[in-house]
Amino acid sequence: MQGLMMDRPLLISSILQYAASYYGDTEIVSVNTEGGEHRYGYRAMAQRSAQLAHGLLAHGMKTGERVGTLAWNNHRHLELYYGVSGVGGVVHTLNPRLFPEQIAWIIKHAEDRWLFTETTFLPLLEALADHLDRVRHIVVMTDRAHMPESSRLKQLMCYEDLLEGQPETIDWPEFDEHTAAALCYTSGTTGHPKGVLYSHRSTLLHAYGAAMGDMLAAGRGDAILAVVPMFHAAGWGLPYAGPIVGAKLVLPGPKMADGETLQRLIETEGVTYAAGVPTIWMALLGYLRESGKTLGRMRYAGVGGAACPPSIIREFHERHGVITAQGWGMTETSPLGSMALLSRAEHESLSDEARIARQAMQGRAAFGVEMRIVDDSHAELPWDGVASGRLQVRGPWVCSAYFRTEHSSAHRDGWFDTGDVAIIHPDGWLQITDRTKDVIKSGGEWISSIELENHAMAHPAVAQAAVIARPHTKWTERPLLIVLPAKDQQPSIDEWRKHFTGRVADWWIPDDVVYVEEMPHTATGKVNKLALRERYADFRFSNDRENQ
Amino acid sequence: MQGLMMDRPLLISSILQYAASYYGDTEIVSVNTEGGEHRYGYRAMAQRSAQLAHGLLAHGMKTGERVGTLAWNNHRHLELYYGVSGVGGVVHTLNPRLFPEQIAWIIKHAEDRWLFTETTFLPLLEALADHLDRVRHIVVMTDRAHMPESSRLKQLMCYEDLLEGQPETIDWPEFDEHTAAALCYTSGTTGHPKGVLYSHRSTLLHAYGAAMGDMLAAGRGDAILAVVPMFHAAGWGLPYAGPIVGAKLVLPGPKMADGETLQRLIETEGVTYAAGVPTIWMALLGYLRESGKTLGRMRYAGVGGAACPPSIIREFHERHGVITAQGWGMTETSPLGSMALLSRAEHESLSDEARIARQAMQGRAAFGVEMRIVDDSHAELPWDGVASGRLQVRGPWVCSAYFRTEHSSAHRDGWFDTGDVAIIHPDGWLQITDRTKDVIKSGGEWISSIELENHAMAHPAVAQAAVIARPHTKWTERPLLIVLPAKDQQPSIDEWRKHFTGRVADWWIPDDVVYVEEMPHTATGKVNKLALRERYADFRFSNDRENQ
Repeated sequence: MQGLMMDRPLLISSILQYAASYYGDTEIVSVNTEGGEHRYGYRAMAQRSAQLAHGLLAHGMKTGERVGTLAWNNHRHLELYYGVSGVGGVVHTLNPRLFPEQIAWIIKHAEDRWLFTETTFLPLLEALADHLDRVRHIVVMTDRAHMPESSRLKQLMCYEDLLEGQPETIDWPEFDEHTAAALCYTSGTTGHPKGVLYSHRSTLLHAYGAAMGDMLAAGRGDAILAVVPMFHAAGWGLPYAGPIVGAKLVLPGPKMADGETLQRLIETEGVTYAAGVPTIWMALLGYLRESGKTLGRMRYAGVGGAACPPSIIREFHERHGVITAQGWGMTETSPLGSMALLSRAEHESLSDEARIARQAMQGRAAFGVEMRIVDDSHAELPWDGVASGRLQVRGPWVCSAYFRTEHSSAHRDGWFDTGDVAIIHPDGWLQITDRTKDVIKSGGEWISSIELENHAMAHPAVAQAAVIARPHTKWTERPLLIVLPAKDQQPSIDEWRKHFTGRVADWWIPDDVVYVEEMPHTATGKVNKLALRERYADFRFSNDRENQ
Repeated sequence: MQGLMMDRPLLISSILQYAASYYGDTEIVSVNTEGGEHRYGYRAMAQRSAQLAHGLLAHGMKTGERVGTLAWNNHRHLELYYGVSGVGGVVHTLNPRLFPEQIAWIIKHAEDRWLFTETTFLPLLEALADHLDRVRHIVVMTDRAHMPESSRLKQLMCYEDLLEGQPETIDWPEFDEHTAAALCYTSGTTGHPKGVLYSHRSTLLHAYGAAMGDMLAAGRGDAILAVVPMFHAAGWGLPYAGPIVGAKLVLPGPKMADGETLQRLIETEGVTYAAGVPTIWMALLGYLRESGKTLGRMRYAGVGGAACPPSIIREFHERHGVITAQGWGMTETSPLGSMALLSRAEHESLSDEARIARQAMQGRAAFGVEMRIVDDSHAELPWDGVASGRLQVRGPWVCSAYFRTEHSSAHRDGWFDTGDVAIIHPDGWLQITDRTKDVIKSGGEWISSIELENHAMAHPAVAQAAVIARPHTKWTERPLLIVLPAKDQQPSIDEWRKHFTGRVADWWIPDDVVYVEEMPHTATGKVNKLALRERYADFRFSNDRENQ
């Protein structure tokens, strides 16, 4: 027997309508690509999103058509999130930090019919012009004054021309909530990038889950600075959750890694919550140390994308009174999986050390995401704070398959294998200990590369640290510490042994250290361990006598 | 094109699993019907809910079968919410305050196969025994020690016997999220009661919407006292939203209208948020005035079910530092429609008068509920703070039809007509001015009976006030003020005229006043205006010269 409730579809356009109706004057501030700032309210944003939708339809955009974006975090990108999906198109965010050939491959694989881009990225697209023959329209997200005079790209339009003269209202169409809404490719370290195809339903449910008080530490009266790029897993869903909780949005445009701009925006825009990857926060904290500047009203730093070193958590709190809220998730999980936002009681009762240790974990699953850890034979492991295994998740905002990909080894029995290794504590608190491929298998036991890195990062001589597994005749694998030094100082392995002693089990301590002048990064800003493993393919441990 | 996200159904069992996994030790405290208190955590609650589900299935409960409850707010009722729905049954909450014939009619109409009840209500059911021939099992929600020795009811079982020996875990089944989960009849003032049949989907989406920070002012570390009966629109959804935000639940059992018990629970259980109808709060505030006692940690009073008089808002705030969060909703809306929870900025910037005026309105729609106001020809009216019209709503947790009822005049064009008259302000803030049937039509204009009642309630001589329309030869209808006096004092209509002058337009001021010794109430605790209109059917206004 079915219930007798209205069968209203969950559609992204409802977010826009809600924000426009109830938070019409709440601001969205964005840094323009060509300089200066743009500001308006959700009402005006909804009007321009409607104009965009009319413009797209007038130019023949069809339901299900992919609309690529190669863009910064700004108001036009936000309008694309709503204007494209609202009328049944699929907004496809492209990561401009990928190699040009990868971008070309993705555009082709996704069959993007539109590309919305910035003046910044025109040279990149011009270099790829020969690969864009199936793209019908390339729209530059700028005003007419900043349009280039000429270009190799024939299909070039001006964003403002597309909107010009279009009606400011629209009856957003109703359709099946399972309809595709957005597409984001995740670049694994091996093989081709894989596309995650979000639906309206998954996006709405994710927004509800993310808006909960112990997930997003922001609501009415707050200002959210989205430093995380909108081309990373839908900007962590902030462009959807922000409007429904009635928060102001601050979008830093091309200035995403610039400590000075971030500090200025935080102070002048009254930012209370800012979200980004650890490297961004290291840059910001470094700028604050040098400049002596402060963080105004900021109370929470959302961190995700990579494990947050405890040193960041400590410095944010001790110097700036800012509480770190570390999240865990992936493009495949929309991305919110869990959040380590401590309760007031925990803040009041825990020692500094205990508090930081807990904040350095990945926290509680969002309501809507089920988690389990399994061993290599897929048997479920207990939540005892000891057993570590492959983390698997399922839920209505977890991807079920990749776009136009026959088979995925990550999907099995209705669960998605995250590729992460985790411990779950008895109260459900998640602790990611490693990536499956980065874990160090020493003498039949696992060593967490992330935990070693966190301890290394706490050493003043370190700017950045990575630990990788290298073969060892006796132990199969042993940890090698790789350090980008902060200054000239290069501690010996004996000094490192002293540093690690007492922090980790003795048999976890890296056997050797090497110093590098630069650390390789992936397109999503993480340390590229695959590149490190390749670079040190021939490395031999000094204590590996049989293999010198 | 469909998205590629997991098609996981939204099921009520997921709430239970989440709370048990992440808030296993968070307490549920309930006042036993036979005295004393019961306390356990969500983990134990989930275990007993699993035992209940096994017990129901062992006794042949089938999918879609209605399981009636005639019960107080306590832990066993909560277990029924989860144990019944979790395995595909329909938990059907019956209001024990209805007339016995109405209860019998509803049990028959719903085809309840099970009745779960309290020792309190056994005499009531025994009197109805002849009408219960299609009920297979009657389960008394008590332990064996409190089971009656004999009864006219043949099908009598003990709740604890039903659970005894059953496994404490269960693989909650998966099924279509549109499956019926709960049933609640709403007793209109005319005609038969009408059943609202909630689905798993509507219940989950409602829980997400209700859990948002500007709806439910409670989260982890908070304790929610649900004074609102669990037989009223699923206890306003608190039994579902409370567990997902990780709040402690306090259930007052049969002591729902007892100021002394409520104060004690609030103080000893550390209640931070309590939800109930205005009459409950009047009783509590009265008890506090007399006893000089205080409200401990309580910070928010949720109010719904009837318009909250500003005097309650003021007294809560001035004497106890408690902020009133008035909600609006109906059984048909699951019930959350809107909430008037002010932002910190509003609290800081508004004068006392302006703040109370805004709190006395019904606030912002929940994300998920669409609202509009229309005139009698169904044309939409503006949100200008002036136009008043029939309030209509739609959304995934609004009912689409009544159970086993062919036709509902309240449903039209996909919208549900609430029967309320409302103004919507430019920022979307809802202001219910009356029930459609209670509004006073004077000289072609509408007078809000609720606003007059609120102003009357502010007079120290008043314990309770109602304003009804009575016929008037010249004006069609005029307002009659009906007062239950607080003391012996009975102000004259001239004194009342002075009281109202300046508070409402002159032509709104009631023409006459009558004093009563008791005020009639409906089964849901509201002033029964239909009964008042009947009682004063022959009333003639003193200024109605042509009709004496």
